[in-house]
Amino acid sequence: MNYVHIVAALAILQYFYFGIMVGRARGKYGVVAPATSGHEMFDRAFRIQMNTLEQLVGFLPALLIASAYWPNAYVAIIGAVYIVGRFMYQKTYLADPKKRGPGFGLTILPTFILLLASIVGAVLN
Amino acid sequence: MNYVHIVAALAILQYFYFGIMVGRARGKYGVVAPATSGHEMFDRAFRIQMNTLEQLVGFLPALLIASAYWPNAYVAIIGAVYIVGRFMYQKTYLADPKKRGPGFGLTILPTFILLLASIVGAVLN
Amino acid sequence: MNYVHIVAALAILQYFYFGIMVGRARGKYGVVAPATSGHEMFDRAFRIQMNTLEQLVGFLPALLIASAYWPNAYVAIIGAVYIVGRFMYQKTYLADPKKRGPGFGLTILPTFILLLASIVGAVLN
Repeated sequence: MNYVHIVAALAILQYFYFGIMVGRARGKYGVVAPATSGHEMFDRAFRIQMNTLEQLVGFLPALLIASAYWPNAYVAIIGAVYIVGRFMYQKTYLADPKKRGPGFGLTILPTFILLLASIVGAVLN
Repeated sequence: MNYVHIVAALAILQYFYFGIMVGRARGKYGVVAPATSGHEMFDRAFRIQMNTLEQLVGFLPALLIASAYWPNAYVAIIGAVYIVGRFMYQKTYLADPKKRGPGFGLTILPTFILLLASIVGAVLN
Repeated sequence: MNYVHIVAALAILQYFYFGIMVGRARGKYGVVAPATSGHEMFDRAFRIQMNTLEQLVGFLPALLIASAYWPNAYVAIIGAVYIVGRFMYQKTYLADPKKRGPGFGLTILPTFILLLASIVGAVLN
């Protein structure tokens, strides 16, 4: 079983889930496309999706490159922390944007570890 | 011939093409950087590019991971549907944002199929 | 040593660095989340990060796919030009958005070369 590929697919599904939440917020708060702002709660849902997009672009390649050098299960566990951190980020951001710090940290930290693991692996091999 | 890699490269080129259309809309409708809003038609071009970015981030890894488990040509055909759907999305969004649904569906559906194929492949292998 | 993987990781780190600069600009110019606009210099930092995100989404897959067909060191050198071009883009955009052209060109050109190399490689193999 390729745990890393499963984590990668789940992280993408989580990201699309945040996108669906933006679509719902559009209807709920009356923010009609192409507008991407107009109501505080819509803005929060939109920023959660955008920030996840910003993180995912770095996380996924780091996850896949690291898995070329290190044991699949270990890399997958680090990737799973990212997914948990993102759900924490979503929950806290919706409650109060000022409390988004810890969830943000729990998604950026795994990515940095994976990037470091990628560089070390690529240099040693 | 690696059809999946060709589809991946064409999807990226399509995305850059939408980006070039945003640049043209900047000039045509007088929206000067760093502004990302200011004219309805510019906003539409910008949203087409941004939505394609949002989709591409999930589509490309799903395409490449799925191709690790399933026949190259089959995965490439599903990927080609995404590209056609995106062009449909662009055309309908420019005409009327409310009509963007079918084109959007034709890009999100292939991605979900590829994600499912990735998970099934990763679990079985 | 896998030079392409090192370049990929460095390009992601550069992108996160631009993200950190956006966070700093939030504090410096008093633009509180979820707002993504409000001060000219914040807007520039935000657009640098966003444009790098837009580019990275095409650059990274092109880099990795091209490296499946062409010598690792050559592909890495083309990728390194992208990183240098991005730093030039950042510097000129902060000084004057109208001068961002050359840095932008030096990041989009390597990506197009890598896309072309990917397609040629995928067709010939």
